[in-house]
Amino acid sequence: MGFVPDSINRLIEQFAKFPGIGRKTARRMAFHLLNASDETAVQLAQAILDMKTKIKFCDICGGITEQETCEICLDSKRNRNLICVVEEAADIYTFERTNSFHGLYHVLGGVLSPLDGIGPDDLNIDSLLPRINHDSEIIVATNPSVEGETTALYLAKLLNSRGVIVTRLARGLPVGSDLEYTDDATLIRAIEGRTSL
Amino acid sequence: MGFVPDSINRLIEQFAKFPGIGRKTARRMAFHLLNASDETAVQLAQAILDMKTKIKFCDICGGITEQETCEICLDSKRNRNLICVVEEAADIYTFERTNSFHGLYHVLGGVLSPLDGIGPDDLNIDSLLPRINHDSEIIVATNPSVEGETTALYLAKLLNSRGVIVTRLARGLPVGSDLEYTDDATLIRAIEGRTSL
Repeated sequence: MGFVPDSINRLIEQFAKFPGIGRKTARRMAFHLLNASDETAVQLAQAILDMKTKIKFCDICGGITEQETCEICLDSKRNRNLICVVEEAADIYTFERTNSFHGLYHVLGGVLSPLDGIGPDDLNIDSLLPRINHDSEIIVATNPSVEGETTALYLAKLLNSRGVIVTRLARGLPVGSDLEYTDDATLIRAIEGRTSL
Repeated sequence: MGFVPDSINRLIEQFAKFPGIGRKTARRMAFHLLNASDETAVQLAQAILDMKTKIKFCDICGGITEQETCEICLDSKRNRNLICVVEEAADIYTFERTNSFHGLYHVLGGVLSPLDGIGPDDLNIDSLLPRINHDSEIIVATNPSVEGETTALYLAKLLNSRGVIVTRLARGLPVGSDLEYTDDATLIRAIEGRTSL
């Protein structure tokens, strides 16, 4: 786009860096902001800077919080023997939305990925060990990707040796799906994990 | 999302204000920025504020520029008798991308919309009149919506009385489309506007 002023081009490039935002959407966003009030633009810029300065990582679970310790870790009604291990802080809110998990969380901050040079020391694993006891159950909720599975197996080996129950989220047919469109790997998992009626 | 810290929730709300950005995408964007470097966040915030302070409206066409007059209006190679009238400044770059229009532009800043209380005085029409002469052709490139058509008819009436040629973009089948999936209104326009082979 030859004649677009520099300052708009720079903003389009910044928006296009977000995952799932292509150049076309980035352009629409920039022009939307151009037509919006100065106040709207200042509010957005301020919200971005605010978030970066206020958000800290919980000193217990590694989740995000504006205090030292996050609200979930401080909640006395939570089952402290049940810890759900997730890849990223954002995953916590995916579980929280279901309102069906009442344990605690532990954020790894990534997954094992030898190709990218990410080993166990690069993940938030050491701080998990003091949180477990003989009654603990650790649910490993990494993504069902190759790296996620590798990480889950590594954690299972590490924690089983300490006498802790380690579980993994069930794999199978998504609710509302159709057998016809289910991929083979999922179908194999669904057969292996069949339950009695 | 009960436990999401306030500063992230505020940022999610700001992102969700953009057209085409739902809450789910807004959440992904906020968490992406959370994991990004401080520098990335500052650059984005700065790009937003920069754009709002630097961008002005061209004193001739009403397009956007960082100077008094935009590069297109200053370009001596452009055909000054051909003026394409568009709704928004962003529309200029849609035409420029095609590299097939070599005239000038004029930005209305909206369309006539009696229901929203937008009349001719609210649009950038007065400044168009001094730009035309007896050799001018005005292409009215408002959107093919009810308001866009109304605005085009209003402009045609106003400009025809001054002896100016007023044209409208062709309506018809989009390139690569399929007759089977073409809506009736488009098909009627395509029949009406048929050309000899």
